[in-house]
Amino acid sequence: MLDARPVLHVIGLLLATLGLAMLVPALVDIASDNRDWQVFAASSATTLLIGLGLHLSTRGAPQELDLRQAFLLTTLAWVTIAVFGALPFIYAEMDLSITDALFESMSGITTTGSTVLTGLDTAPPGILIWRSLLQWLGGIGIIVMAVAVMPMLQVGGMQLFRIESSDNSEKILPRAAQIAGALALLYLVITLICSISLWFAGMSAFDAVAHAMTSVATGGYSTSDGSIGNFDSASIDVIVTLFMVLGSLPFALYLQALRGRPLLLWQDGQVRWFFVLALLSIGILAAWRIVTTDTEVLEALRFTSFNIVSIMTGTGYSSADYNSWGGFAIGLFFMVMFIGGCAGSTSCGVKIFRVQVLVETARCQVQKLLQPHGVFTPEFNHKPIPPAVRDAVMNFFFLFFGCFITLAVILSAFGLDFITAASGAGTAIANVGPGLGDVIGPAGHFGTLPDGAKWFLMIGMLLGRLEIIGVLVLLSPTFWRG
Amino acid sequence: MLDARPVLHVIGLLLATLGLAMLVPALVDIASDNRDWQVFAASSATTLLIGLGLHLSTRGAPQELDLRQAFLLTTLAWVTIAVFGALPFIYAEMDLSITDALFESMSGITTTGSTVLTGLDTAPPGILIWRSLLQWLGGIGIIVMAVAVMPMLQVGGMQLFRIESSDNSEKILPRAAQIAGALALLYLVITLICSISLWFAGMSAFDAVAHAMTSVATGGYSTSDGSIGNFDSASIDVIVTLFMVLGSLPFALYLQALRGRPLLLWQDGQVRWFFVLALLSIGILAAWRIVTTDTEVLEALRFTSFNIVSIMTGTGYSSADYNSWGGFAIGLFFMVMFIGGCAGSTSCGVKIFRVQVLVETARCQVQKLLQPHGVFTPEFNHKPIPPAVRDAVMNFFFLFFGCFITLAVILSAFGLDFITAASGAGTAIANVGPGLGDVIGPAGHFGTLPDGAKWFLMIGMLLGRLEIIGVLVLLSPTFWRG
Repeated sequence: MLDARPVLHVIGLLLATLGLAMLVPALVDIASDNRDWQVFAASSATTLLIGLGLHLSTRGAPQELDLRQAFLLTTLAWVTIAVFGALPFIYAEMDLSITDALFESMSGITTTGSTVLTGLDTAPPGILIWRSLLQWLGGIGIIVMAVAVMPMLQVGGMQLFRIESSDNSEKILPRAAQIAGALALLYLVITLICSISLWFAGMSAFDAVAHAMTSVATGGYSTSDGSIGNFDSASIDVIVTLFMVLGSLPFALYLQALRGRPLLLWQDGQVRWFFVLALLSIGILAAWRIVTTDTEVLEALRFTSFNIVSIMTGTGYSSADYNSWGGFAIGLFFMVMFIGGCAGSTSCGVKIFRVQVLVETARCQVQKLLQPHGVFTPEFNHKPIPPAVRDAVMNFFFLFFGCFITLAVILSAFGLDFITAASGAGTAIANVGPGLGDVIGPAGHFGTLPDGAKWFLMIGMLLGRLEIIGVLVLLSPTFWRG
Repeated sequence: MLDARPVLHVIGLLLATLGLAMLVPALVDIASDNRDWQVFAASSATTLLIGLGLHLSTRGAPQELDLRQAFLLTTLAWVTIAVFGALPFIYAEMDLSITDALFESMSGITTTGSTVLTGLDTAPPGILIWRSLLQWLGGIGIIVMAVAVMPMLQVGGMQLFRIESSDNSEKILPRAAQIAGALALLYLVITLICSISLWFAGMSAFDAVAHAMTSVATGGYSTSDGSIGNFDSASIDVIVTLFMVLGSLPFALYLQALRGRPLLLWQDGQVRWFFVLALLSIGILAAWRIVTTDTEVLEALRFTSFNIVSIMTGTGYSSADYNSWGGFAIGLFFMVMFIGGCAGSTSCGVKIFRVQVLVETARCQVQKLLQPHGVFTPEFNHKPIPPAVRDAVMNFFFLFFGCFITLAVILSAFGLDFITAASGAGTAIANVGPGLGDVIGPAGHFGTLPDGAKWFLMIGMLLGRLEIIGVLVLLSPTFWRG
């Protein structure tokens, strides 16, 4: 039997935290004299009470999670937070339908950034900051999970990032709590620096904080329908780009850097590949823009670098309607969408280390074909990649694209056109945000999609955020048989 | 140093065969009093002479191919035959450009079936039969290669299909020659049966032979712009469907069946999965058509089964403009396009056995995640799948989709819209034939694409036909260093 109590114990704590977080938009709305503060206060009280209730009523349970409990916690935590995070959207002035509220909340907490809302520029500040806060919490949540939980779950090759080889998969929780503190503090400091930078660059304090939270979380919710493009400032573009990149590098290496080993960051294969892939994509697209249109060099660089980084890191801000940049740009954005950032960051997608493992394995395979008796060992960061990791990564790749294609076909069954269905499936599973095409592209939004499509997109976001297998495991009969 | 002589020795023989084959359209054109017969006769003489010259001048070379020579032969043979096969297209009345002629020839010999031609219904019979013959030769070529060469090259997990475990990869050629005879005879007989069936069903003898050759080869070239839909006959649809399926099952099992073991065919996991996937796709699409439109049950079944089988097997005939069936159909056709048929058949794509290996590996991975100390062995046809095969298959999957996405982006750089670029890349790499959308969909053709796009599509066809890695190996510096 699966003892759910330790799982509910943790979820209770997470919900209580979420409830407390709802006081932020409540205060913001009080300060700006908006009646939504009552909604946030009520949601806060509800969430806090239920959270504390769960937490306290399961006090007697064992404190350590076994493997199955950890898997259950992973999915259940994300779903529960999405549900409670949706409460303010349902009851606030905006009066969203339950589907839309859940979509906005799930898109927030998974740091996807697809939105059903328009009229953000005139929306009440409470709602805006709540959207940012959801992404910010989702960002730190995934970092902690990726560093402290995922490696033990061995999902999708994440065991490459076990901090110590002696990690015991039976004792997940204490370690998570220990690491979470340091990472959360670091995350907070980076967000503060980003806020101040944006404020200096000309944003209002409110916009600065809201965008700092969604930049570092590579989430992409904005306070304007025009996203970052609305501010039309090169310095803001550069700052946001910088912090999207910071949000996509392995946070554990920041801790190492602070402990006096900054070089580790630069020596890390993942970080190098990230920059190579980003610069390559930017270079190709900028060159294309310069050659085929009369865009000036600096302008081309500014807009391509911002939007490529935004899509590749899975943030999903836009500073231009790149959907109108022509077929090649659309093809490239579609490709870049899947790459993602580094493991142990807030970004999503296939992730750089998996691209590395796949490419390195392919290279060794070709060598092996030519020299059947030779020994070729794929390496990652100068260490051999264990066969189990290669299997897990390749398996992830198969399941990722299997889910992507299935989701795209399902979406098209709701009447979505080809590019909307394909890019919608991609943007959900890679947790990017905007899709491509006229409907859900950078100039559009998800509000007009049929409700059924929104539900499947939510499933896609959850799958993508929890490395696909983290969710699929729960569908296995073995899981429930124990 | 790579000794190219044994390679050229074989290619000489293949060219001489191609030259002889060109006499068929020459005779057909003489019989129908068309001046193109001179073009075919001249092309035949040229090809035959160069072929014989190559073959005889390399007579002294060692008769056995080593691994590198076998790889070189694989790609070089296909390219050379495509080039010489294009001669008639260049010089015939139709007066195609060199790019178009090569495209038509490469699309033929790889059994892809994408065409740049229109006005097929009034085209000279020589050209029409030449297109069919190219596909027919490509079909038997790939069967022989898949059964006798690929398993030794260990490309993409094909080593699963070694006929004897004692096969020596150093001695590829004698075995190939031995098996080729039996397979070619069988292939001929099946084609004859198909021709006669189509003739009885109402096709002219000429159309029957032309379509029999491209059905069994899962090629898809037709003698009409309207493809099989032009004949508008349910019995023809059924016969063609049957022979497309026959062309997609493992030919080696037919030999076994003839040797008195017909049950092997039905017990084969690949064959079962093929039928399950095909019936599932047909069932879903037919149900969709019946529910969402006022199509009658029988009509829905007829048109969905024909077109799904045509795309899944990589044939590429059409009996209806399924591009107008709406988004869901387009999404489903896009997905089905990649599946393909069985290994050791004329069909292409990812192939059923790889889908099986991927799914089975994923299943074991999930089990392993839940029970880290358990032992789970992925199986294929009740035998454990060797780790090297799993690696090769997963690697194939990565390279296949890597090439697909790269090709799609390159195509979009030539100004192709999203669906044309994406489906064009897919249809080329999976050797299907028609794409989706208005330009290259079942009602369109490839003639209007820019020349550059056609060249990249040709590369895609070659990559797909030779299991990606068969071509990529030649790009490795190791290959040329020896």
